[in-house]
Amino acid sequence: MALVVQKYGGSSIGSAERITEVARRVIATKEAGHDVVVVASAMGDTTDELLDLAARVSRTPGSPREMDMLLTSGERISNALLAIALTDLGHPATSLSGPQAGVFTTGDHGSARIVDVLPTRVRQELDRGRIVLVAGFQGLCKDTDDVTTLGRGGSDTTAVAIAGALRADVCEIYTDVDGVCTADPRVVPTARLLPRVGYAEMLELAANGARVLMTRSVEYARRHGVTLHVRSSFTDEPGTIVAEPAGEVVERDMEKETVTAIAHDRSSALVTVAGVADDPALVARVFRVLAGTGVEVDMPALGAALSFTVPRSSAVATAELLEAELGLKSVSVDVGIGKISLVGSGIRAATGAFWETFAALEVEITQVATSELRLSALCRESELDRAVRALHEVFELGGADQAVVYAGSGRGW
Amino acid sequence: MALVVQKYGGSSIGSAERITEVARRVIATKEAGHDVVVVASAMGDTTDELLDLAARVSRTPGSPREMDMLLTSGERISNALLAIALTDLGHPATSLSGPQAGVFTTGDHGSARIVDVLPTRVRQELDRGRIVLVAGFQGLCKDTDDVTTLGRGGSDTTAVAIAGALRADVCEIYTDVDGVCTADPRVVPTARLLPRVGYAEMLELAANGARVLMTRSVEYARRHGVTLHVRSSFTDEPGTIVAEPAGEVVERDMEKETVTAIAHDRSSALVTVAGVADDPALVARVFRVLAGTGVEVDMPALGAALSFTVPRSSAVATAELLEAELGLKSVSVDVGIGKISLVGSGIRAATGAFWETFAALEVEITQVATSELRLSALCRESELDRAVRALHEVFELGGADQAVVYAGSGRGW
Repeated sequence: MALVVQKYGGSSIGSAERITEVARRVIATKEAGHDVVVVASAMGDTTDELLDLAARVSRTPGSPREMDMLLTSGERISNALLAIALTDLGHPATSLSGPQAGVFTTGDHGSARIVDVLPTRVRQELDRGRIVLVAGFQGLCKDTDDVTTLGRGGSDTTAVAIAGALRADVCEIYTDVDGVCTADPRVVPTARLLPRVGYAEMLELAANGARVLMTRSVEYARRHGVTLHVRSSFTDEPGTIVAEPAGEVVERDMEKETVTAIAHDRSSALVTVAGVADDPALVARVFRVLAGTGVEVDMPALGAALSFTVPRSSAVATAELLEAELGLKSVSVDVGIGKISLVGSGIRAATGAFWETFAALEVEITQVATSELRLSALCRESELDRAVRALHEVFELGGADQAVVYAGSGRGW
Repeated sequence: MALVVQKYGGSSIGSAERITEVARRVIATKEAGHDVVVVASAMGDTTDELLDLAARVSRTPGSPREMDMLLTSGERISNALLAIALTDLGHPATSLSGPQAGVFTTGDHGSARIVDVLPTRVRQELDRGRIVLVAGFQGLCKDTDDVTTLGRGGSDTTAVAIAGALRADVCEIYTDVDGVCTADPRVVPTARLLPRVGYAEMLELAANGARVLMTRSVEYARRHGVTLHVRSSFTDEPGTIVAEPAGEVVERDMEKETVTAIAHDRSSALVTVAGVADDPALVARVFRVLAGTGVEVDMPALGAALSFTVPRSSAVATAELLEAELGLKSVSVDVGIGKISLVGSGIRAATGAFWETFAALEVEITQVATSELRLSALCRESELDRAVRALHEVFELGGADQAVVYAGSGRGW
């Protein structure tokens, strides 16, 4: 008998019919003899509807505390409904709010971090033989006795944190795609499902455009040794295990699979700061200002000018801030770039073939960055798909069967 | 400076526009220099929508605990939205769940009773100069750490309980009618708004068909000395004060106003048990069985047969239970009756005119009951409106102006 934590995203429980379907999946695991804890997101559009109501009663954004009070009701509703459905199907279930489940967070409304998980009540309910449902995305700030939300990817993080605290055997992340693939199947029809991937590679994939998991929950899983299993709630595909690589897998990776997967990203913009290349102190001040904003900076390069990528949504504000704070005159923003990343354990050996592919395609690379597990390049966004497909073929990542993509996905691959 | 508790029902906050309108009313009180605590119900149809979702995922009713988890989200949403609207209009507000506001209840999910109110957090927020919003209808059972609901009229009860615990100067119940009238204005066009009514009379009116207040919250108000002020959230009418009668008012009542108002009720059925009149022990057993069901029994009469009224929704089940438990053969149910009640402090003096009126109308009275403050009679339901109008005229309860009725009311008068 294992202890299994299962997380279902909003699209998996978007309707009463889907809730019943998810209930059957939960019961299948329970009837296989396992203890089951379920973390469900808010139903499909609930969060958007609540945000819309808030916008209609207020010209300004609501206070973060009140927005959290408002939005956390979404998960309470979906979890209670799932408990009602499970009980109706003969399996008594108890739904717990984040606070009841012992998820304690910082007081940063809208983007709280989990500081502690004390799942006493969860254990009690499991010991009574019940299926336990925990509202994702939320917790309690002990100092203020206020409910908080964890921000983007919060329900995944709740599931991983609960799994870690309970020392669960596995944390299954159910979503609307089959798992983690060698590339986005919507771009590369021959993309293959990865049966297993290490935490570090998964982090690189997540940070560079693969939206199937958020870096935050993968980091949490790695730190607490939680095995993730990414699966579709719409099919019975085996999905992808994310875990520390076992010895034999590493060996095989080192010998043969120099590249695990290709990620690509259209959400970055390139910021170029001219006239600082010969002033190291000024360059340092640029990065100090950037660090103060909390904006994610990637692909830094210093040549004739200083350039780096930031999320497109922050690009103009970042450029204006640099001009205002440092009296810089020529900060430019390019939103037409794309980023392509090879990820794998033997990435260094792949560099030559990587450059040769771009040369053969006559696609210009404007900037590169490498790490132990990643080789990234910037090109024009319009060239991105062509380059991803070519690299996927060059590195022989494709499988015999075509990957399956499901419609209506908010997650990407 | 006073401390004012205001309660708004679901129809008062049925849309984003109504929430903004209610926010303006709350602010008007705050700007008059008062401390304000607001208790809001769930928005218009929210509860029905949640019940519908539950029915779609379960063929059986959901467990009471899970139904409470589900339904309490409705008040959290409306209160958070109202807090967001108030803050947008320049008046910082904090919304609190029932548990956060210190509303502690029994563990009877779906029909919990309040056992204690410890409004420490409410006081703290008031002391910070904030408007405080408390989610109505809900509380926390300390033994189980589970959220509970108070059942029908629960938001009124929350408001009265909070007002009592804070020793508020008044508890304003905002609804979709102008206040308590001398009769239902939909039946009696000349019905007059009562500026003031005592707790005892209000209890009789509420128990006998006037749905503007529930007996439960009036009883709570009387026990804890909370002054109620029933008002419309759609108009600026002065409304009705419900309080212990001041000396002068009693005197005036005793001299002139023998009758305060007329209530009528179409929701009762008459149960008649034949063949028990000569068996006092069997009559006692009938009432013991009835007491065990918790069904409200009124208008008991023992003549050739034993008869009494119960709510129509319980009538058939009650009759079947009596037949099954006591081996009775002839228990009949009449769902075509109506009940008419005169309520006032000098009701004894009115009895003669009451009978004369029915005689003049040629309406047959089948059963009567009296108490210190009430004189009730049963007649055919089809004769009810005619009798109510005639009595209203005989006892000169009408005002100069016609009463105003608002559409879409779920409350009655």
